[in-house]
Amino acid sequence: MTIHYPKGMHHTSQVTNMMRTGKTTKKALTFSRRGMGLEEEINVANDFYLANRLAVIHKKPTPITIVNVDYPARSAAKITEAYFKQASTTDYNGVYQGHYIDFDAKETKNKTSFPLKNFHQHQIDHLANVLSQGGLGFVIIKFTSLNENYVYPASHLIYEWQLHKGKQSISYETIVTHSYRIPESLTPSLDYLVALDEWLAHINK
Amino acid sequence: MTIHYPKGMHHTSQVTNMMRTGKTTKKALTFSRRGMGLEEEINVANDFYLANRLAVIHKKPTPITIVNVDYPARSAAKITEAYFKQASTTDYNGVYQGHYIDFDAKETKNKTSFPLKNFHQHQIDHLANVLSQGGLGFVIIKFTSLNENYVYPASHLIYEWQLHKGKQSISYETIVTHSYRIPESLTPSLDYLVALDEWLAHINK
Repeated sequence: MTIHYPKGMHHTSQVTNMMRTGKTTKKALTFSRRGMGLEEEINVANDFYLANRLAVIHKKPTPITIVNVDYPARSAAKITEAYFKQASTTDYNGVYQGHYIDFDAKETKNKTSFPLKNFHQHQIDHLANVLSQGGLGFVIIKFTSLNENYVYPASHLIYEWQLHKGKQSISYETIVTHSYRIPESLTPSLDYLVALDEWLAHINK
Repeated sequence: MTIHYPKGMHHTSQVTNMMRTGKTTKKALTFSRRGMGLEEEINVANDFYLANRLAVIHKKPTPITIVNVDYPARSAAKITEAYFKQASTTDYNGVYQGHYIDFDAKETKNKTSFPLKNFHQHQIDHLANVLSQGGLGFVIIKFTSLNENYVYPASHLIYEWQLHKGKQSISYETIVTHSYRIPESLTPSLDYLVALDEWLAHINK
């Protein structure tokens, strides 16, 4: 399959990327990311991927339970009572070069570990189901204090979850060892397809 | 990849299925389907597939725009003003044996054609994007008066849409010719993976 990367930004290793950007650009990067949450960064990346025909990945709408709806004459139906419902799956899914993609996004201020309480059993179950059907399941983990982002494969998350029974945390070193780092980038700021490419190359070796 | 079908109900052709069920069973089938809308039938099928580890396919939550939320002390957050938003994608997606699955469900009482006004441009665009990434995009079409259900590949829908510029209809014959029929079944009543298997066998020929 031929992949058309815009401006050859993909497949540059993180090191060359850092070298190329230099100090000024890096400051700009940090600035542009300031105030943008992880979810927003992913949405921007997904919009970029869609517009450039690189991948079709969307955030699922927030699940709610609707209790009451008003239907005013000649106006749009108005929901007047509804409640947030716990999602039974993950937040994002889609397709990338024939691969089914399914992930959640989590961030932590912690610098040395990632608390497992960030996950729920149903998310773990869903990711296990995805893996059993041959999908690519993972979590995008952001260490906000370190400004480091990782694609952490669900297979390893499930292993750690079973080991600790959902309690305690996964150490920073463990995550780094088993993840694919998302390099700093400009457009989009969180170019996680680069990490997926690295992962897929590793799988296809 | 090994596929574990429960009770060997898959891969039976529609003709043998009809013959096997006979008159009494067929009445029961019709009765069990009465009052169950297409969407509900698909949800039941998806639950069945998930429980039997056959596929992981979910309906996306209804997208809404939240305008106002009350946060009462010691109670769940209550959405007090929200509006339905037009979906930018299709209603269902997921993964089946490594394939990304993406589809919408449509029904018509019409016996001779399917009106294209049932679709919106953004759904067509989304399905085209899915195809370009190697996903399986389609529509489950139910002819309610005929009690016939089809998996109609998105590639052909897009062709018809461009031909008629979204106006007019697709004839019943055209749909039947280019679709994979979903055979009548008991559990689940709309066993659309059977039609997908037929389609995939055709692709892999």
